[in-house]
Amino acid sequence: MFNKLIPCMRYSKLLFERHLHQIPLSKDRYGIIRKPFAKTMDSDIQLFKSILPDKNQILLDPQDTVGYNRDYFRYVRGLGTVVLKPRTTKEVSHILRHCNNRRLAISIFGGNTGVCGGSIPVFDEIILSMELMNKIEVIDEYSGILVCQSGCVLEKLEEKLLSKRMIMPLDLGSKGSCQIGGNLATNAGGIRLVRYGNLHGTVLGLEAVLANGTTIDLMSNFQKDNTGYHLKHMFIGSEGTLGVITRVAIACPTETTTQNVLFLGLRSYEAVLQTFLESKKRLGEILTSCELIDRVSLEVTVNHLKTASPIKDFPFYMLLETTGIQKEHDDEKVQSFLDYVIERGIVSDGVHACEPSKIDHLWKLREMIPAAVYSNRFCLTYDLSLPLKEFYDIVTVMRRRVGHLTKIVCGFGHIGDSNIHLTIAGDELTGEIQLLIDPFVYEFTRKLKGSVSAEHGIGLLKPKYLNYSKSTEAITLMKQIKMMMDPNGILNPYKVLQI
Amino acid sequence: MFNKLIPCMRYSKLLFERHLHQIPLSKDRYGIIRKPFAKTMDSDIQLFKSILPDKNQILLDPQDTVGYNRDYFRYVRGLGTVVLKPRTTKEVSHILRHCNNRRLAISIFGGNTGVCGGSIPVFDEIILSMELMNKIEVIDEYSGILVCQSGCVLEKLEEKLLSKRMIMPLDLGSKGSCQIGGNLATNAGGIRLVRYGNLHGTVLGLEAVLANGTTIDLMSNFQKDNTGYHLKHMFIGSEGTLGVITRVAIACPTETTTQNVLFLGLRSYEAVLQTFLESKKRLGEILTSCELIDRVSLEVTVNHLKTASPIKDFPFYMLLETTGIQKEHDDEKVQSFLDYVIERGIVSDGVHACEPSKIDHLWKLREMIPAAVYSNRFCLTYDLSLPLKEFYDIVTVMRRRVGHLTKIVCGFGHIGDSNIHLTIAGDELTGEIQLLIDPFVYEFTRKLKGSVSAEHGIGLLKPKYLNYSKSTEAITLMKQIKMMMDPNGILNPYKVLQI
Repeated sequence: MFNKLIPCMRYSKLLFERHLHQIPLSKDRYGIIRKPFAKTMDSDIQLFKSILPDKNQILLDPQDTVGYNRDYFRYVRGLGTVVLKPRTTKEVSHILRHCNNRRLAISIFGGNTGVCGGSIPVFDEIILSMELMNKIEVIDEYSGILVCQSGCVLEKLEEKLLSKRMIMPLDLGSKGSCQIGGNLATNAGGIRLVRYGNLHGTVLGLEAVLANGTTIDLMSNFQKDNTGYHLKHMFIGSEGTLGVITRVAIACPTETTTQNVLFLGLRSYEAVLQTFLESKKRLGEILTSCELIDRVSLEVTVNHLKTASPIKDFPFYMLLETTGIQKEHDDEKVQSFLDYVIERGIVSDGVHACEPSKIDHLWKLREMIPAAVYSNRFCLTYDLSLPLKEFYDIVTVMRRRVGHLTKIVCGFGHIGDSNIHLTIAGDELTGEIQLLIDPFVYEFTRKLKGSVSAEHGIGLLKPKYLNYSKSTEAITLMKQIKMMMDPNGILNPYKVLQI
Repeated sequence: MFNKLIPCMRYSKLLFERHLHQIPLSKDRYGIIRKPFAKTMDSDIQLFKSILPDKNQILLDPQDTVGYNRDYFRYVRGLGTVVLKPRTTKEVSHILRHCNNRRLAISIFGGNTGVCGGSIPVFDEIILSMELMNKIEVIDEYSGILVCQSGCVLEKLEEKLLSKRMIMPLDLGSKGSCQIGGNLATNAGGIRLVRYGNLHGTVLGLEAVLANGTTIDLMSNFQKDNTGYHLKHMFIGSEGTLGVITRVAIACPTETTTQNVLFLGLRSYEAVLQTFLESKKRLGEILTSCELIDRVSLEVTVNHLKTASPIKDFPFYMLLETTGIQKEHDDEKVQSFLDYVIERGIVSDGVHACEPSKIDHLWKLREMIPAAVYSNRFCLTYDLSLPLKEFYDIVTVMRRRVGHLTKIVCGFGHIGDSNIHLTIAGDELTGEIQLLIDPFVYEFTRKLKGSVSAEHGIGLLKPKYLNYSKSTEAITLMKQIKMMMDPNGILNPYKVLQI
């Protein structure tokens, strides 16, 4: 029944402790039985020491390893006792070859910002931390390319690029910690996707080490390379179960120099849709973000932050951002868009910010929603892709089903990408509430052919929901690929396909 | 030695005839030995007739099938005797299931605009033509999505989208014939890639039929769907060797309403690079195409078209296109870019066109280069991705090597995507010339870690060059995937991996 409790921090903390101290390795954790992997022995440690030259590349002291055994949100907790920190692809390759020969399982650890427990060991998997693989190799302003090792932190990359008037094509709330390799492994989305597209489009090449230690060079510095199957995409979004991404080449846009943020109040969901459509037509190529916030989401956040919203009492709010290279042009486009939607009564009220401090404040009202709702005793969030016409229906329906039993039922998210975060929070997560939510939310999503994990991935926490978004035939093919590429199942076991 | 002769139309025509009439099926064609596939029997035809309800869905008369046995450029010619034209995914599935059970090989035929012989049978493979699978299912202006069957012609899709103020994210010279399924299967590039990215980014979902007849539903109408491995990318660019793409969902941008084209003359390649860099900074989000044309390419084309170029006598020309939604803004950006590059002497001369007729004329000077160079008795073209700094070196080097033995050595292409088309043409393709070119061009590309087939693919004509751009490990994994997904090797045999 762990799955039911996952999104509840207080519950899951208790669960960690119990699991950590009381349950032997061979017994089940989260309803999962340990697979017959080998246990790490002294001879393995000696071998790792011979592969990794520096002392700080191996952590064995429980005080040092504990941080690698728990995720940021405290959803899960692992029992790993060995942390390895390679610096080079060669070291990764040696480690994997040895682990594969010995049937030692591996959990791959990036910036630890995932929300599905994908990078934390389930039992005592060896933890492969990528943090020391943080070299930037190339920044080429002519072709707009960044080449780096996979452990580079997203924000560091952005800083380096800015010095050459370029930016990363993705931006996430967790950019201060998340690593580019983890971004690829989880196919991270973020708030620039409306403008620059997803990683399958922007990643030009990558290098990965397969389960048996083979290094596969799929690096390319080019937008176009039609020589055989496009293998790099197998690793993007496979959450470390098919290989360890060690290097990345990514297409980086030229820096933009102007920014406008609109925070709009709307009286109906139809008006939200109309506003989105008009923003695409009238803001066109400068539209970078398009976010939806409902009344409850905003109120909870305003209270939590003890701040004020520039407009209030609307059922819906939208945050639109434009970025560009010519201030007058952008300002004119924004003004003409605003004139159009206000004159026609599509947008009822709003503010327009160009100054960094005001922009930051408006973004905070959107970005702090998760923190605000998580401050409740229990909080369940669902990361769904849904058709725009039925996008908000899930919130309305859930409010009807569990509104009277909970404190908060709200929806917010990236409406520009059809991605909503449905959130239900309150004081006590009763069995009655759970039964009213699960599997209803997933069945609702399946009926509309949506995605039950739009951007968060599957990890440890969602494998049982995979079949709500993927057909049996697709899952079968995924399993065939996994078994072909990692026949001993040593890479991130128990995650995604659970094989 | 067919590979040497491939790009020469006159030679290869002779070769077709000889092969077509004189060589029995079991013997080699193009140096390839026929695999032990079954031969189509009357009972197979009866079965196909039971699957396909209409008479016009099966062609057996040699007069009807001949057009499906030769490619547009007359590089290759097949010996197929049966053409099947399914209308539905179910029909495709039934056909493949039967063919797989019977070990009947299949060649998949789209719009027949490929340049590597990928869609023409080598021996007597059954030809599966997708032309009747041409239904548009959904055009949704809110989410910007098109859903259609894979046999839809690109230009038809663009026309339908325009009526809803949307466009296709890709545009090709062959749009009047090429089909969207073929575009996906070959990962087509085209002239809008600078702006809208490649198909791995814009394709949201697809449906494919596997070799054994299993239909795999990877449809999604969403930018974000992180539920398991991202399988759709296996089919994008696999040239019909892993499955038959039957349906497609693609993200379509909102229509742009303004267009500017610049045709610029430059005195050095350094100036070309500088111009590209400044265009990204100063035209920013409205830059849609960035093409390079060298002196020889332009002169040959001007002579061939019996037209005039607005500027002449430059070693390099660039064609830049911008598209946007606000004429004044775009005009100002274009003017300020021009002022900058002309004042600094980066660009020496140029014309700026906003009217459709003038724009068409300028684009013709770029788009007709292939036709112009192909009018020679022999013409070899190489479709390379190369680093921008060394982008034009290959032309200079080849001019030194074979310039005195040929009429034309020129380079043109999509410099915005680092993709050059090196072209060598003349009256007689001697062994001496061939030896000076091949494998030199491929080795040059490998040294710079470029791509030996940037956008054209591998097909029948380039498998032996695959290893110049892909590592042994990558090719091994490709072969494992092919063998897993099509163990009998019935899908487009002899192509790409030649298994």
